[in-house]
Amino acid sequence: MDKNILPKKSEFSSWYTAILELADIIDNRYPIKGCIVWKPYGYEIRQRVIEIMRKLLNETGHKECLFPLLIPESIFKKEAKHIRGFEGEVFWVTQGGSEKLNEKLVLRPTSETSIYPMFEKWIRSHRDLPLKIYQIVSVFRYETKHTRPLLRIREITTFKEAHTVHASAEDAEKQIEEAVRIYRRFFDFLCIPYLISRRPEWDKFAGAEYTIAFDTIFPNGKALQIGTVHNLGQNFARAFEIKYLDIDREEKYVYQTCYGISDRVIASLLVIHGDDRGLCLLPEIAPVQIVIVPIPYKGREEEINTYANQIYEKLKKEFRVVLDDRKDVRPGRKFYEWELKGAPIRIEVGPEDVEQNKVTVFRRDKLARKQVSKEMLSKRIRELFVDIKENLKKRAWEEFRNRVIYVKGESEILEAIENGIAYVNICGECKKSVKSLERRLGIKVLGFWNSTKKSCIFCGKETDQIVYFGRSY
Amino acid sequence: MDKNILPKKSEFSSWYTAILELADIIDNRYPIKGCIVWKPYGYEIRQRVIEIMRKLLNETGHKECLFPLLIPESIFKKEAKHIRGFEGEVFWVTQGGSEKLNEKLVLRPTSETSIYPMFEKWIRSHRDLPLKIYQIVSVFRYETKHTRPLLRIREITTFKEAHTVHASAEDAEKQIEEAVRIYRRFFDFLCIPYLISRRPEWDKFAGAEYTIAFDTIFPNGKALQIGTVHNLGQNFARAFEIKYLDIDREEKYVYQTCYGISDRVIASLLVIHGDDRGLCLLPEIAPVQIVIVPIPYKGREEEINTYANQIYEKLKKEFRVVLDDRKDVRPGRKFYEWELKGAPIRIEVGPEDVEQNKVTVFRRDKLARKQVSKEMLSKRIRELFVDIKENLKKRAWEEFRNRVIYVKGESEILEAIENGIAYVNICGECKKSVKSLERRLGIKVLGFWNSTKKSCIFCGKETDQIVYFGRSY
Repeated sequence: MDKNILPKKSEFSSWYTAILELADIIDNRYPIKGCIVWKPYGYEIRQRVIEIMRKLLNETGHKECLFPLLIPESIFKKEAKHIRGFEGEVFWVTQGGSEKLNEKLVLRPTSETSIYPMFEKWIRSHRDLPLKIYQIVSVFRYETKHTRPLLRIREITTFKEAHTVHASAEDAEKQIEEAVRIYRRFFDFLCIPYLISRRPEWDKFAGAEYTIAFDTIFPNGKALQIGTVHNLGQNFARAFEIKYLDIDREEKYVYQTCYGISDRVIASLLVIHGDDRGLCLLPEIAPVQIVIVPIPYKGREEEINTYANQIYEKLKKEFRVVLDDRKDVRPGRKFYEWELKGAPIRIEVGPEDVEQNKVTVFRRDKLARKQVSKEMLSKRIRELFVDIKENLKKRAWEEFRNRVIYVKGESEILEAIENGIAYVNICGECKKSVKSLERRLGIKVLGFWNSTKKSCIFCGKETDQIVYFGRSY
Repeated sequence: MDKNILPKKSEFSSWYTAILELADIIDNRYPIKGCIVWKPYGYEIRQRVIEIMRKLLNETGHKECLFPLLIPESIFKKEAKHIRGFEGEVFWVTQGGSEKLNEKLVLRPTSETSIYPMFEKWIRSHRDLPLKIYQIVSVFRYETKHTRPLLRIREITTFKEAHTVHASAEDAEKQIEEAVRIYRRFFDFLCIPYLISRRPEWDKFAGAEYTIAFDTIFPNGKALQIGTVHNLGQNFARAFEIKYLDIDREEKYVYQTCYGISDRVIASLLVIHGDDRGLCLLPEIAPVQIVIVPIPYKGREEEINTYANQIYEKLKKEFRVVLDDRKDVRPGRKFYEWELKGAPIRIEVGPEDVEQNKVTVFRRDKLARKQVSKEMLSKRIRELFVDIKENLKKRAWEEFRNRVIYVKGESEILEAIENGIAYVNICGECKKSVKSLERRLGIKVLGFWNSTKKSCIFCGKETDQIVYFGRSY
């Protein structure tokens, strides 16, 4: 077998580790478990993803802020369920210089308790509502389980958390819908397939009324949570005394929502579109959209290089393009490296191309070559970008849909979740029996949603309610 | 006195506190001393400043990365002088969940010790050099002194640190020159006046061979360090075993530099250009470049609003513009608020403007009004932006130059530094006597540089070397 081939599906775990390193995304050798280094190439991909999220949030009236990392213990502990959900997995700062601190400080595992004391000060009247803010920060979890880069880490470096405040339960509910729409657009833009469900009571965000989650599926069949939207009701408002003076001059508690994404989005982007040769980056996200590789031919090197350079000068006005004219590296090696790094288009320039005033265009996603005339090149590349994106999207959703399987009986669930997510219909009455299934089969209830009417798996009654099961990260 | 006037020079400390709050830059009421919240308006200014720095660094071949916040104690302590400089002022994480950690972790006070263990892995041969990276992160200092927002804080949120690695001392020296050039361009762009000096031995960065610093002067006459450039020589290379294989096949230690800026740059930007009415933002930095205020006139409200709206629609294609059409707020109040927030241009639209197909343009920096025809408006605004920037730069440098004073004798130093920075000529021989002066007069030696030849303050010998004194933050 070709040594440059990494079988993505059959050996996913090795593929993932290898690609992150070989494509210069991160370095996992930092001397603390679960803390990674973003290398320049990976960092640029990350920045482009963040900018898309920023744009979506800014367009919908969210304002970017920045709140402190450290939270005093007494404030962190104000909302009872929240603290029960997080206290087992937080880092504590107990010492400053050589002094013991009077009060321990927690490294935010998420920022409700650092943001909401300020909301209490910022909100006075109904005119201050709605308030919609977000921040993009590192958060910290003291993971004791096995860590995996970008998936289960101790410093989550790309935590985008939005927090909104409303005058009524209805407004909060509408905000949940907006948040779901924003995340749909975000994942659609990144061509990451997902399903949406309402997490079961026992798996909702600590302190929330309910949680809506986005899950995708990895090549090993595991479900990966890539975004969550929480309706906090008045739980935090009561704990943090966040009130407003309503039009009727009465003081009322506010309603809140929050929603977040993390480094897992970037992991999904790399994993879902990648293949056995490495990454396939979306043109919008790729640090290098086009790489030009001159194919040397004895005696005609100068001619070829001049021509390649002309192409480069022309394209760089419009695209992020690299001319890989390294003398000591053979074209095959260059192909290998740039395929690994996922550059969407490669332009090869050989003697025939020069003669015919053409170039050879190779698209990474389909591994297909075609000659294109120099005149038509820019236009053809723009078309190709659209086509590459459509192809990656189609491919990703096809695979995803094949992995989400309707099953009729309990006995089929275990087999189905080997490969992805299984769902069954379940009526409102029987919902409460689901948890026992989770325990009995050793599987995970991802969440509830609605679909076409079929028989309830337990009682046989017709219902449009469904429940998703899977194995999850 | 007008209640809207805050005397910047005579009551600088109150001015500073009030402006940061009133102009919605930050909130200083976070429940941990020295930790501040960036509000949306302040955050946007901060982002624009960061983008300028990013551009300058990217253009000169620096690559952005992101390294972890936490550093194990054993690694933090590897460079002996570095740890002596910082151990008194770092936060320690000692606990994860309810467990005591096996090894204490420090919150980075600066990132040499988190980055350099990775450099040791990344660098193999002379072909890997130079390596030039940077990151923009929060760093933490356990300040026990009185804290001041953006000036002396516990979470420094805008720490840009560049780290470079070179094959020779000469290359490192050239990098120091490039770094100084980059910072000059950065501060010049922001119209922040500065002087450059070489910090005395006893005030250089812990672990450096020497430190070049940029200082500006605040309205209270205090010098503020706004940027530093350090030549690290081989100190860290030896501590972290960072070696490369040279062309001669010999293994050699690398040479390193690092340079940083912080939140203080943003503080300087706000303070230096501000006046008794609030902020004066540079057009390039202002979140709102132009505010349009309709001046209502009985019976002609609709006409005026329609006209103001036309102006808004026209300008928003090109500028960051807000139409402040709040009905329940009087124009005077709007003027006050936008002057406080530093919008560079205000456009007032009254009945006369509508009749004459003009608008009244008010520039924040000179507090001057002028009528401009609707046709010429975009062009005139672009010209005004250039003029505003030039004026702010000129004004800032004039005041700065008036505060940097050459003095002939020891007795004049104390008086001169009441208002800013004093300098005297000092020959190489007498340099060593400077520290005693620092102690004797209770002043601070900022650093050494070169200027015109004059007599040494101690021995009278002619020399072009000078030393700067001041009071510093």
